[in-house]
Amino acid sequence: MVNELALPGVMAPVLTPFTSDLRCDGKRFVGFCRWLERQGMGLAVFGTNSEANSLTLEERIELLDTLIEAGVAPSSLVPGSGACAFGDSVRLSQRAARQGCAGVLMLPPFYYKGVSDEGLFAAFAEVIERVGDQRLKVLLYHIPQVSGVPITLGLIERLITRYPQTIAGLKDSSGDLNYSKAAIDRFPGFRVYAGSDALLLATLKHGGAGCISATANVNPQAIVRLRQDWRGEKAEEAQARLTQIRKTFEGYPMIAALKSAAAHYGEHPEFATVRPPLTALTEGQRNELVKKLSAHNFAMPGLEKALTSSGEGM
Amino acid sequence: MVNELALPGVMAPVLTPFTSDLRCDGKRFVGFCRWLERQGMGLAVFGTNSEANSLTLEERIELLDTLIEAGVAPSSLVPGSGACAFGDSVRLSQRAARQGCAGVLMLPPFYYKGVSDEGLFAAFAEVIERVGDQRLKVLLYHIPQVSGVPITLGLIERLITRYPQTIAGLKDSSGDLNYSKAAIDRFPGFRVYAGSDALLLATLKHGGAGCISATANVNPQAIVRLRQDWRGEKAEEAQARLTQIRKTFEGYPMIAALKSAAAHYGEHPEFATVRPPLTALTEGQRNELVKKLSAHNFAMPGLEKALTSSGEGM
Repeated sequence: MVNELALPGVMAPVLTPFTSDLRCDGKRFVGFCRWLERQGMGLAVFGTNSEANSLTLEERIELLDTLIEAGVAPSSLVPGSGACAFGDSVRLSQRAARQGCAGVLMLPPFYYKGVSDEGLFAAFAEVIERVGDQRLKVLLYHIPQVSGVPITLGLIERLITRYPQTIAGLKDSSGDLNYSKAAIDRFPGFRVYAGSDALLLATLKHGGAGCISATANVNPQAIVRLRQDWRGEKAEEAQARLTQIRKTFEGYPMIAALKSAAAHYGEHPEFATVRPPLTALTEGQRNELVKKLSAHNFAMPGLEKALTSSGEGM
Repeated sequence: MVNELALPGVMAPVLTPFTSDLRCDGKRFVGFCRWLERQGMGLAVFGTNSEANSLTLEERIELLDTLIEAGVAPSSLVPGSGACAFGDSVRLSQRAARQGCAGVLMLPPFYYKGVSDEGLFAAFAEVIERVGDQRLKVLLYHIPQVSGVPITLGLIERLITRYPQTIAGLKDSSGDLNYSKAAIDRFPGFRVYAGSDALLLATLKHGGAGCISATANVNPQAIVRLRQDWRGEKAEEAQARLTQIRKTFEGYPMIAALKSAAAHYGEHPEFATVRPPLTALTEGQRNELVKKLSAHNFAMPGLEKALTSSGEGM
């Protein structure tokens, strides 16, 4: 089991900024990643909230290279690298490992449903073997309500047994804390991340590693602080505040709402753009969201500057 | 509405042969496509049964080009071109249109679930607009039990209204004949294909176009004949025989079973190879399947020769 891993304790599935004609905006992506990084937030780029599966493989590789060339620390980076075709997953995972990324977050192949653990084991094994790089550290990505393909405890066991140096942990986005607890209990040293910051404290108390959470994109500082001070007296209170902000976003389609907040607080309206099949919030929804957030004294300090100054040297 | 379309009436979602180390076997793919084509079967390459989503985009483009270079008629070809990222779908659809393919079979973007018809409309529109080719003819692909993303009648209506020259029909793999009937009734001239040859006669009787069916890979002649003679006296009997063969395959994981049959009757054991997350039939299952098929006097005449002679000139 990998124990001495330098994986970040909290990570944002980083929003991918697009231009209004749906191109990836590399400049704003770098600026946004730097803003998150400065606050101590790890960068799980190319996650569900990143609309990663709405990006081509080439776009993902180009964005990853852009980040590293711009000086974002590979040790902060845990790119999503799961794909339906193992060839795609191999390319992205290999690139990440070679660039020195802390790890990768790997979805199972998600087109076919009802597949066996044997088949999923073979799929992950195919990628790990073909990457053939000891530096590769894999977080398995359990998000059955979206992928349609659960990562069972039996599958984890098979993978850990075969690849103890590579299989580093799990992102549990099922929302079922009991599943996280079962994985923590069964696999000592295995790093389990909550898929929601609403479960951060509970996950840490049970021995989990942290969280990789949608709202880490907009509320990074408070999440980083709770990860650091979770044994402190005020942890419950801090968790309650995190959950309150999260619940405000959960009143809307999450990705569109997060991007609307980034667009508003970053003073960059184009950031609200999503790729189809997602749709942006309506103007009415945006205004309502901002009003609710303001009532909670929500802010994203420094974001506007980060988004405008990031182009230097690029 | 497109009425004068030359789309094939029956099509096979063509199995993709792999080598034992999981590479695409272009030579066997050409041979298998020619074998199907000779029997009057249309070629819906890169469908669900083709394991298309287990192929990288480059692999699909290369296989398509290989087929056309080998002389397979583009008018027989309806490649699957749906993808999670519209950029991928644009590339493959554009290639198909330029090569003169009869049409494309388009999955909706299938990662995000619970998305709106507005978002799905935007996704299809993005592809159609970016391809920007009047030759593009789209069959929408409704397979909610696998994709997780249904194509609703409301979505079809929006798409037909906006792109009457492009939206040509629907493959209904839901297994719900009532859904096919509703689409046929509501959209005159719209070509509805059953996703199973077990529903071929019923679909034709209601005014549907034909079928795009897994077992068309192994039982092409009988399916082509029923499509031609469906108004004849012996149609019910022919349908019953088709359904019997289909049910034999449905006793196993379908794709692995089809490939096992092709491997056995084509005398090319490597054809049984599937890519993960699918798993091949066990030896016991293969023997049992062949035994059951033999009891129905099942055969795939000429396949062995087609698979071995296809390499000429390649």
